[in-house]
Order: sequence, then structure tokens, then C-alpha cells
Amino acid sequence: MISGPADHATAVGLDPTDSPETYRERLLATITPGRPTLILTDLFGGTPQNVAIAATRSQPVRCISGANLGLVIEALTADEPLGDALVERLVAAARESIVDIAARMATRT
Amino acid sequence: MISGPADHATAVGLDPTDSPETYRERLLATITPGRPTLILTDLFGGTPQNVAIAATRSQPVRCISGANLGLVIEALTADEPLGDALVERLVAAARESIVDIAARMATRT
Repeated sequence: MISGPADHATAVGLDPTDSPETYRERLLATITPGRPTLILTDLFGGTPQNVAIAATRSQPVRCISGANLGLVIEALTADEPLGDALVERLVAAARESIVDIAARMATRT
Repeated sequence: MISGPADHATAVGLDPTDSPETYRERLLATITPGRPTLILTDLFGGTPQNVAIAATRSQPVRCISGANLGLVIEALTADEPLGDALVERLVAAARESIVDIAARMATRT
């Protein structure tokens, strides 16, 4: 709706009935072996995060926790290769998108 | 599910059929006049953000954009009064929750 079709992106939700093992199977099924893949998770330390870390050991997978909508949009619209520079840029952009509106409005006056 | 019941919190989604005016009416209907209220929005510059800013002019409302799950949990479990100190703490915590996992793992070795 915001950034157009996202055919190269997949959402893998953690269901209440999932075990870490079933979630891992479903997550890994979405990863094309050898293809650079970025995984965005909601919380550092949660099950999706821990499962994703395991995936980074066998595949060219990078992972960012604490995703917000700004991060998702930046990631979907990025056209750089997946590496340190892109991950650093995405993390910085996502952090900068978290704004105390009162403080931001004050600096405009 | 993660932080227990949240009777004092309300989600006000932006529907595809909403105009800024109808969204404003629905948002304002959830705010108890005079009661300090924190609004978390997804994107800086989006309609919910812009409508929330208008609400801050007539009510003791604070607003943070770029919400992620960590921010929602921190806000739901906060027990301080809603003011600059709390908003600053929430913004900092939310930013710190956005982590490049490869970098984090590297600092652990």
C-alpha cells in the first residue's frame, strides 16, 4: 500500500501453536539457499530473533531486531547489496524515525 | 500476550476508507479530556501522526512516531508520570532495541 508490491518479501508470523522447531522450519522454508536475505524481527531476544540467528550461521542472512514500519519501508525500497553498509544505514534510519514529536516541533520554532 | 492486559491502551487503526477527518474523530473519541495520554504512531509524517499532533494542542497528549514492539511494551509497563523524562526514556529504549544482530554478536566474542 505504501511502497508498492513486495514480491521479494515474506512475512513469517510466530503462531501461538508454534514451537521454536516448527517456527524454524517455516522460516527456513522461505530462504533461498545462498541468496542474501535480510530478516527483520520485532524483539531482541524473542523466538523469531533466536531462530533467525541460527539461520545466519548457515546462510548469507543478516538480521535486524526492533523493526518498525519505517525500517520495513526502507528495507523494501533499498537497492544496495546486502552488507554492513546497508544494514548500518537501515538501523540508523529506523532509529531516527523514532521521534518525540513535542521535541521535534520545538526545534521548528 | 507479552505484557498482560492493557485496559488503559487502545488501538486506533487507519482504515482505507478513513479521511483525515473521520480518523481524527475516532482518535479523539478514545482520549479522556484532561487525562495525560501517550500516542504511538507508525510513521513520522503519516496521517495518524498529523492528526495526533493536532490533538496535542488541546489535550495533555504526548506523541512518539516510529513505534516498534519494544516501544509498545515499554510504554505499557511504564509507571512514571507522562512527561519529558518518560518520553525521552521511551524514545531511547526504542532506538536501542533496533539492533544489527551481526554487530551485536561480534561484540560478544
